[in-house]
Amino acid sequence: MPFKIFVDLATPPGALEVLQAGTKGHQLVFPQKPISSVLASPELDPQFTSVDIAFGQPDPRAIAEAAHLKWIHVSSSGITRYDNARFRALMAERKIPVTNSAGVYDEACAVHALSFMLAQARNLPAALKSRAANGTDEWLALRGSSSTLREQTVLILGFGAIGKRLVELLRPFEMRILAYRRKVRGDEGVPVITPDQLARTLAHDADHIVNILPDNQESRHFFDATRFANLKPGAVFYNIGRGTTVNQNALLEALQSGRLKAAWLDVTDPEPLPAGHPLLTAPNCFITPHIAGGHVDETKTLVGHFLKNFERFVRGEPLIDRVM
Amino acid sequence: MPFKIFVDLATPPGALEVLQAGTKGHQLVFPQKPISSVLASPELDPQFTSVDIAFGQPDPRAIAEAAHLKWIHVSSSGITRYDNARFRALMAERKIPVTNSAGVYDEACAVHALSFMLAQARNLPAALKSRAANGTDEWLALRGSSSTLREQTVLILGFGAIGKRLVELLRPFEMRILAYRRKVRGDEGVPVITPDQLARTLAHDADHIVNILPDNQESRHFFDATRFANLKPGAVFYNIGRGTTVNQNALLEALQSGRLKAAWLDVTDPEPLPAGHPLLTAPNCFITPHIAGGHVDETKTLVGHFLKNFERFVRGEPLIDRVM
Repeated sequence: MPFKIFVDLATPPGALEVLQAGTKGHQLVFPQKPISSVLASPELDPQFTSVDIAFGQPDPRAIAEAAHLKWIHVSSSGITRYDNARFRALMAERKIPVTNSAGVYDEACAVHALSFMLAQARNLPAALKSRAANGTDEWLALRGSSSTLREQTVLILGFGAIGKRLVELLRPFEMRILAYRRKVRGDEGVPVITPDQLARTLAHDADHIVNILPDNQESRHFFDATRFANLKPGAVFYNIGRGTTVNQNALLEALQSGRLKAAWLDVTDPEPLPAGHPLLTAPNCFITPHIAGGHVDETKTLVGHFLKNFERFVRGEPLIDRVM
Repeated sequence: MPFKIFVDLATPPGALEVLQAGTKGHQLVFPQKPISSVLASPELDPQFTSVDIAFGQPDPRAIAEAAHLKWIHVSSSGITRYDNARFRALMAERKIPVTNSAGVYDEACAVHALSFMLAQARNLPAALKSRAANGTDEWLALRGSSSTLREQTVLILGFGAIGKRLVELLRPFEMRILAYRRKVRGDEGVPVITPDQLARTLAHDADHIVNILPDNQESRHFFDATRFANLKPGAVFYNIGRGTTVNQNALLEALQSGRLKAAWLDVTDPEPLPAGHPLLTAPNCFITPHIAGGHVDETKTLVGHFLKNFERFVRGEPLIDRVM
């Protein structure tokens, strides 16, 4: 039985051909209005009511109207717009599996997090600006403010696929690695901190805090004024999860007081921060514009990931990266 | 038998105490003139003629005059000022072992090299300056110019302790790792390129070239105009060895032509580059001021490394990091 697949994803030529070849014998349907970005919210498309599969960022309102829908594959890792009780209930009732594209971004996000950690450890922002001569005070200060990560402690919060990959990348550095996640599964491979241990770990152990928490009601402003005020002095904070998990005023205060040595943020709230926002000029605050998951041929990887799942769907096998 | 140890090394309080404790029962002699830096060239010190051991950067002229000298432990990894046939012959004739401090800097140098590679892979210099909004051309370009290193090829030239450690740090990235060294020992753990294969490897395979060559007559301007003109297009060049191994005019041309995607240099010739030097403003040229080996408590690590060797010396055991 051929499936009708709605694709609201900007597909550059190379990626489109791969998608067409991988769905031969089925029907691809594209939105009537152009897609400005993978995370944009397109207007409701009348074609959507008759499709079997949605690949991209389908509008939750349209999903409710699509009587034939059998599977939704979201083209991002974050699923905030779908992650609510009402939508979950609807999917459960209609037996529509929802998968996301976490597997596409894991590797790049983990590498991005490590690039932040190493740029901090080697003091690259200051060192790349310096022409200090050998033996000068400035030179000795740069060398003395650099480190190797060895024997330092890193706490990874929101321990999913990105966190696991980050652990693999960090293994050779001989750090102490700890994880924090809502549901402990036992397959983490590193010690998992429980909620009642978290405050103590942040206050006494964590030299590096890698925040990969997703955006949901529990995680909103998870890093609040109390948490920031009680960090281990000199800790470094990294955020490659979602900007909404951080109280940015509290983060700013922690940077200004010097309690936090530095913050490396790939996500903020909002994105981008408006001109003049105090975090843009806060001491030791380094921001990239939500690009952690990005990589060469990203759309091709996205399409390839969808096609792997599509083959499973056609054969009636369990889907990967299923979130509902 | 107590030894007289000449120490021309700036020793901050914590490190001095460790040195004193570790050499109890022996005599420490410090230069009569203050030491401005570990790599400075102090004037000849009359005390030097009677010492048994030299720890620091002893003047080669003074060494020739020191009749009792039994061991020289150099406080750097580079040994250029001692690395010539005449000095080697003198050491061999007088049976004076020469050790260096390579083991002190390996870890930091390897981490520094990887910090360069990841900053490049994640396009941090451009990304940290950008406030690109999601979905814009600038944002898509940043994501599309980022990578994960996976399946790329790295060639490490000058494959000693730093190179080996870098291989360990790179293992989880699933790169193709190649090495090039003067004397193949068979314990490299990665394929070693022979001199006759080098041109081909640079032209067709190496996406990342990590230059850790030491400074000696063979390595001077090893990376010359011919080598730079024949690199694989889009390759990235990293130098954490010595500035003298590179023809900087040729490097500049390769950056200006775009053949070389970027250069990350911890060493230059001279250091620092004079104001107005064209490499300081060359496209995609990123320079740190010879700090790759630096790390917190570096002098303490140096002293600890010397003391480990001192214990071996006292017991008549083979010395570590012996270079002559």
